[in-house]
Amino acid sequence: MKSHTKYLIFKTEKRIDFLNITEEIEDAIKKSKIKEGLVLINPMHITAAIYVNDAESGLIQDFKEWLEKSTSMKHNYHHNNTGEDNGYAHIWRQMMGHQVTMAVTNGSLDLGPWEQIYYAEFDGQRSKRVLVKIIGE
Amino acid sequence: MKSHTKYLIFKTEKRIDFLNITEEIEDAIKKSKIKEGLVLINPMHITAAIYVNDAESGLIQDFKEWLEKSTSMKHNYHHNNTGEDNGYAHIWRQMMGHQVTMAVTNGSLDLGPWEQIYYAEFDGQRSKRVLVKIIGE
Amino acid sequence: MKSHTKYLIFKTEKRIDFLNITEEIEDAIKKSKIKEGLVLINPMHITAAIYVNDAESGLIQDFKEWLEKSTSMKHNYHHNNTGEDNGYAHIWRQMMGHQVTMAVTNGSLDLGPWEQIYYAEFDGQRSKRVLVKIIGE
Repeated sequence: MKSHTKYLIFKTEKRIDFLNITEEIEDAIKKSKIKEGLVLINPMHITAAIYVNDAESGLIQDFKEWLEKSTSMKHNYHHNNTGEDNGYAHIWRQMMGHQVTMAVTNGSLDLGPWEQIYYAEFDGQRSKRVLVKIIGE
Repeated sequence: MKSHTKYLIFKTEKRIDFLNITEEIEDAIKKSKIKEGLVLINPMHITAAIYVNDAESGLIQDFKEWLEKSTSMKHNYHHNNTGEDNGYAHIWRQMMGHQVTMAVTNGSLDLGPWEQIYYAEFDGQRSKRVLVKIIGE
Repeated sequence: MKSHTKYLIFKTEKRIDFLNITEEIEDAIKKSKIKEGLVLINPMHITAAIYVNDAESGLIQDFKEWLEKSTSMKHNYHHNNTGEDNGYAHIWRQMMGHQVTMAVTNGSLDLGPWEQIYYAEFDGQRSKRVLVKIIGE
């Protein structure tokens, strides 16, 4: 069995931002030389999420509106009593699903026609790491 | 390390439908001859989800009502400006959790007493693929 | 490839409870002697969730209030017509994300600075199992 570990770093310009990171994951798989296996993509910070969905700007706007409507940025969170102001971000990342595991087949991401891997930043403007762990053969 | 890749195809009669696919996953594990490992079950289309929960028709109705109440099929999604009418489905699949990874132990799914694996279709009536990737030994 | 399977058992005092189980997962990894790989942490009961987020009591209170506001414990669930009274718990576990897969690097959990692994019990006061499956080398 082989394994390959890569830490991607993202610093978004906006506090809330959505980045398509499919190519970065594909590059990590190529470097790993793993042909068949699994790749875990996990944000190492707890106010961000990795998810798989469409690369379509309208949908990203829909996500933002759904998150805000479900539990607002401006709600008075208990968590914010610690001096933080990002209570919403800790919940939003659970709503989006937090992390994904994808298949590696024939040395590439085994994606459906519209599957794209996104980094959803909910409290950005600072450097954050995403762990990519590939295991297989 | 061994690996086994299988693509299941589902075409539901209804636009929104829930299928118990536990047996299909168990069959794929048997064919893989893998005794100890992990199995990823990932829908390759972005308006569907794989989740693990109870095989109980009342609960499935509860899921549908909770999804609709949280963000309605009929809401005016930005995504629908592209000509699509499935904005709700892209969000619902995030709400249900999108995908699961399960354990393979002694050549079978390592399930608790009530765990069943479901395919949740939110925009069906057409053929869709689900990727099953098993790795282990 | 090596694999290691461990079943943790939790019986919470309260019906709804949140337990930080990071150390139990770290212990299982140490016992597995696996240095590089993946660890799946999956609740074997369908009214509980495993998630990764902050070890902060205010945030846990925020989670409880968000879950209750989104779909109340007291709602009249179809599932409860079976004689159960835990319809809410089956939905809450989907909202929190159900399960996680984490990376094992250099023989330890590969965690960011604030990532902690939690067991979220939504229908407790009885013994429940959590499956920990580690694969790697």
